[in-house]
Amino acid sequence: MTQASICTIGDEILIGQIVDTNSSHIARALNELGIRVTHMVSIGDDHQSIISQLKEELTNNDIVIVTGGLGPTKDDITKKALGELSGSRWELGNLEQNRIIRRILHSRGLDALDINLSQAMVPDTCEVIPNRKGTAPVMAFRFGEGPVKPGEADHVPSPTDFGHACVLYSLPGVPFEAIGALPDIIADIRAHFALTHITHKTLMTYGMAESALAEMIAPWEDALPADMHLAYLPNQLTGVRLRLSIYGGDQSEQEQRIDAEFARLKPILGELLYAEEDTNLQTVIGCLLKGSGQTLSVAESCTGGMISHLLTTVPGSSEYYLGSVTSYAIPVKEAVLGVSGATIDEQGIVSAAVAAQMAEGARKLTGSTFSVSTTGWADAYGDEREPAGTVWVAVSGPEGTRTARFNYRNDRQRNIERFAASALNELRKYIAKSLALNK
Amino acid sequence: MTQASICTIGDEILIGQIVDTNSSHIARALNELGIRVTHMVSIGDDHQSIISQLKEELTNNDIVIVTGGLGPTKDDITKKALGELSGSRWELGNLEQNRIIRRILHSRGLDALDINLSQAMVPDTCEVIPNRKGTAPVMAFRFGEGPVKPGEADHVPSPTDFGHACVLYSLPGVPFEAIGALPDIIADIRAHFALTHITHKTLMTYGMAESALAEMIAPWEDALPADMHLAYLPNQLTGVRLRLSIYGGDQSEQEQRIDAEFARLKPILGELLYAEEDTNLQTVIGCLLKGSGQTLSVAESCTGGMISHLLTTVPGSSEYYLGSVTSYAIPVKEAVLGVSGATIDEQGIVSAAVAAQMAEGARKLTGSTFSVSTTGWADAYGDEREPAGTVWVAVSGPEGTRTARFNYRNDRQRNIERFAASALNELRKYIAKSLALNK
Repeated sequence: MTQASICTIGDEILIGQIVDTNSSHIARALNELGIRVTHMVSIGDDHQSIISQLKEELTNNDIVIVTGGLGPTKDDITKKALGELSGSRWELGNLEQNRIIRRILHSRGLDALDINLSQAMVPDTCEVIPNRKGTAPVMAFRFGEGPVKPGEADHVPSPTDFGHACVLYSLPGVPFEAIGALPDIIADIRAHFALTHITHKTLMTYGMAESALAEMIAPWEDALPADMHLAYLPNQLTGVRLRLSIYGGDQSEQEQRIDAEFARLKPILGELLYAEEDTNLQTVIGCLLKGSGQTLSVAESCTGGMISHLLTTVPGSSEYYLGSVTSYAIPVKEAVLGVSGATIDEQGIVSAAVAAQMAEGARKLTGSTFSVSTTGWADAYGDEREPAGTVWVAVSGPEGTRTARFNYRNDRQRNIERFAASALNELRKYIAKSLALNK
Repeated sequence: MTQASICTIGDEILIGQIVDTNSSHIARALNELGIRVTHMVSIGDDHQSIISQLKEELTNNDIVIVTGGLGPTKDDITKKALGELSGSRWELGNLEQNRIIRRILHSRGLDALDINLSQAMVPDTCEVIPNRKGTAPVMAFRFGEGPVKPGEADHVPSPTDFGHACVLYSLPGVPFEAIGALPDIIADIRAHFALTHITHKTLMTYGMAESALAEMIAPWEDALPADMHLAYLPNQLTGVRLRLSIYGGDQSEQEQRIDAEFARLKPILGELLYAEEDTNLQTVIGCLLKGSGQTLSVAESCTGGMISHLLTTVPGSSEYYLGSVTSYAIPVKEAVLGVSGATIDEQGIVSAAVAAQMAEGARKLTGSTFSVSTTGWADAYGDEREPAGTVWVAVSGPEGTRTARFNYRNDRQRNIERFAASALNELRKYIAKSLALNK
């Protein structure tokens, strides 16, 4: 199995200033290619540390992906270290990256200074993969007797030898640029490595914890063919992703085999299943509503704006999303959403009745087809009626108003997230049924 | 300088399923103690990899902090590897962790099974630091000729020798538990290592990019005494943190010296300065409003609920925060917030006038003392009046309504975050002035 290591360079990681999210993105992409990531490591902006660490990683792996340390200032020293590591004798200017640098600076109303254009200079031992998202070039260093790309017979390999064919990719540290360069890296890896083809398919579920889900589908899982591998990938906001993989074989045939297994699984999952590709609840809600002419509004209390925030992370959400009211204070619940003070007194502020009136109030206020609401105790305390960690969710629409109760045992932040995701899931189920009924 | 390494164990990191946030937290805590983190590494749940990696880290560092791999199931193998690494011959039951396990399961309405209680069994070469947040014990393994804690003369050190005194701490991987255990680890490090005392003080700024800020305060920075170190710690949501540190000396004397330097810096920072401790904008707004009897509301458009979400991350925010309207659609702006259709036609939807009417509308609707609003283009396109990345912010209150315009050049998600933070900063400045005026 092809093995890879991911290295992050930069003092800002080691002093805890920023969280490294690039490595996780890259690892997921490699994992989907069937490449095993053996190691992730973060090192500081120190010439000798970079060289000795990368030597070790190249000795032990087929692919090493490095992010960071490519900025134009003096403290970014990755390029120099890579030049030394690969036995480079001089740097060459890369015309395409030079043009990109000038274009990016021009779009910001700036002239390209020498310090900017120096970013297009690269060690003569590398190949440049142009980086269209930023000024630092992406570089590939090939070591040893690796396969040579078509039309690349004149490529001079690095004089450094790690005893086996391996490649080092150097990416910028800025997540927007690193993630932007990833498709080019993946394409290069596919072109240069004889990867066993891996076929993946994903089902998204929401509403059952990983362990309970595993127990529920165990008979199905136990009957899977030996060459199929099932992975459970849980996430607080998107639920549990179920991914089936097969190594090797003909892709369309393997896809059909996976589809056949998933066809057996779907009736077991029932309403837990919400998508047959890697996505999230708010995107699925958007797909349901786009082009339907139907609209959506939100009334939040304990979730404080998070549901609205998640819905508006979907590009194009303004087509169906009208808006929300966060009624944190009781008078706002009454005056803006029309919740009855008597209901609050009789049923409690965290109750099915208040959630229902909030959702109905939002729908009336905005004229939306659907609405969703939350009222709950996110903090470590509740009241005499409902304990801490309880939320009531209501969904209102053409088929009336439905409510559901959830209880979680986390801290404030995590409760808010789980409340918001649970509300989105209730909303998703309601909309899917409603649109199916009215087709 | 004392050196440390942070190791994360778990296949879920290497396949990109979860982002490791523990290492960043731990690195920040160590950095504040004056300990240099040389290395962060993630390895899989593989016995030999764990042992060989930890040997290397212990050889090169004084402190190694390991997170993850302590769960009760078979795939969590860190404890067994640590037992072998430290030359343990058997496992002992820890009474205190045993009690904690039973108490935690009891609070969840569960009986403690053998598999649960087995978590209290630890290698005889370690000291247990009870973990009150979860079932897995925190363990400290001391190697070599390290100082012995008072009253610990009977402690048998590990037979393994890395040629120098070093310690390995093993923490659970669940962030809530790992971060929860950190104060105990810090206390243990302080007790066992002769750390040079380090005095830190932090100023929080918002409103100027790191590079421009550095240029502005360069004369002050250049005049700092040689033993003072200034760090710039930028964050998208909280602005640039300025931290002054001094190694050694008498703490209260060093604090006075830092205060004297900061006293010279404050007039240069002016309104950019928003706090003299490590905090964020929404918490500072909460501190201003708590106990003042004044209240707050929000009207959002392009930020989609994020300002409201950030405000309600502050525990106790219900004391002053009444609620918000996210008016994503124009009819909601008009009907709920009372924005004039004529103004939208004449000035554009992204304009000072619309922002002002939104803020005034939210204040009127909720009866709050203050309100803040946003209207902008977060996406890659604008209109004929304002380009992509532009936001208009308005703050309304007893001193009238003020507006401000910002332009950023990021993707949708990052623009939404910067818009929200800029709005919170405008709100913070307005409230601070208003409360000062009306004292």
